[in-house]
Amino acid sequence: MHAFYIPTLTFTTKHLHLSEEESKHACRVMRLKMGDFVELLDGKGGRYEAKIISDHPKKCEVEVINYSKEESQSFEIHIAISPTKNADRIEWFLEKAVELGLTKLSLIQTDRGERKQMKTDRLEKIAIAAMKQSHRTYLPEIEELQSFKDFIKKYPKGGIAHCEEFLAQTVIEISTPTQFPILIGPEGDFTPNEVDLALKSEYLPIALGKTRLRTETAGLFAVTLLKTKFE
Amino acid sequence: MHAFYIPTLTFTTKHLHLSEEESKHACRVMRLKMGDFVELLDGKGGRYEAKIISDHPKKCEVEVINYSKEESQSFEIHIAISPTKNADRIEWFLEKAVELGLTKLSLIQTDRGERKQMKTDRLEKIAIAAMKQSHRTYLPEIEELQSFKDFIKKYPKGGIAHCEEFLAQTVIEISTPTQFPILIGPEGDFTPNEVDLALKSEYLPIALGKTRLRTETAGLFAVTLLKTKFE
Repeated sequence: MHAFYIPTLTFTTKHLHLSEEESKHACRVMRLKMGDFVELLDGKGGRYEAKIISDHPKKCEVEVINYSKEESQSFEIHIAISPTKNADRIEWFLEKAVELGLTKLSLIQTDRGERKQMKTDRLEKIAIAAMKQSHRTYLPEIEELQSFKDFIKKYPKGGIAHCEEFLAQTVIEISTPTQFPILIGPEGDFTPNEVDLALKSEYLPIALGKTRLRTETAGLFAVTLLKTKFE
Repeated sequence: MHAFYIPTLTFTTKHLHLSEEESKHACRVMRLKMGDFVELLDGKGGRYEAKIISDHPKKCEVEVINYSKEESQSFEIHIAISPTKNADRIEWFLEKAVELGLTKLSLIQTDRGERKQMKTDRLEKIAIAAMKQSHRTYLPEIEELQSFKDFIKKYPKGGIAHCEEFLAQTVIEISTPTQFPILIGPEGDFTPNEVDLALKSEYLPIALGKTRLRTETAGLFAVTLLKTKFE
């Protein structure tokens, strides 16, 4: 069944018009007709089964037939990552991470990061597509690019994955399933200053295995470890 | 230091000419000069430090200064995967998997697979680039596309990841670190016939978590689990 993401839905919604873009997609591209069923997602756990009652290609109207609310994941997967020069790499990271259960993505600006800006609207679209694809009902939050310092202030506790392994522990030893973001550095790693700053706050150094990983692979590895640990 | 993959190297090699393509890359693109150092990898654990003794752009000559041999990984990560319609997806899977420690990739033809052929030469190049990038010294083996049946005959024991979860166990419970390939199915999953065939041989059903994963994400998830389990 074709799914649409409509963040304004509430459990009291009985019928609604799809947006012009969605109407076109439903009635022209997918050729859905009156009486066909679609699925609506609010990104907050709500799954609505709906029936098309008017297949107008600009103002498709649907009636909600059934509503169910899924429990949210019992653990957070929050990754704070330094955007790669090549945006593709962060985009695919996000796609895979959403499939695997990411709950929040923060973009952080680091001393050695190669990108001083990154828009989140494209990332938002990728997250929505991945949510539908993987039949999830929660859309992860995506935080705009912020400085490393600001991030540490906002989230004073977490894990920092970096290459100096001497004090690192593995994710397996983490016992907190929430409010524990994992920081993933840029290609050239975090600077000693950044590592210091994190450790002086309440960050634990995290080891991601013995091989050298690209930023986006390290991010995905962290997602998998948290998923395996807490699911 | 720039690295070259030269599979014909042996520990007795004292000096050699790079191929025409590699010579061009070293002397024209990277502008390396006589006296500069390069790293040579044989893909079988050998790491050779070498010095350029002639920077001819078609016949660059190097002298081996130092040789070391790395132990191979104590466990296998062997993934047998049904190629995706979009080759990109398998290609990025391979890149990430090599970074994470893949030792063998087999391409399998399944009933619901959308691709009847896939050349391995491009995959080979991707594996080499990922090996260099992640400072690994072992190049994973890549097996040509083969039928599901032939694969099961050749490797009678392993794990099969599929969506019918009722009897699946998690990778965490696997105790064999070698000769235990994990089969990853196509977008529409393995057919009941294929699952039967595998279970009648010595395959265990494997669960890859609760969310629905794309083929390549499932593959990477399996790699990470095996790595975490045995490293």
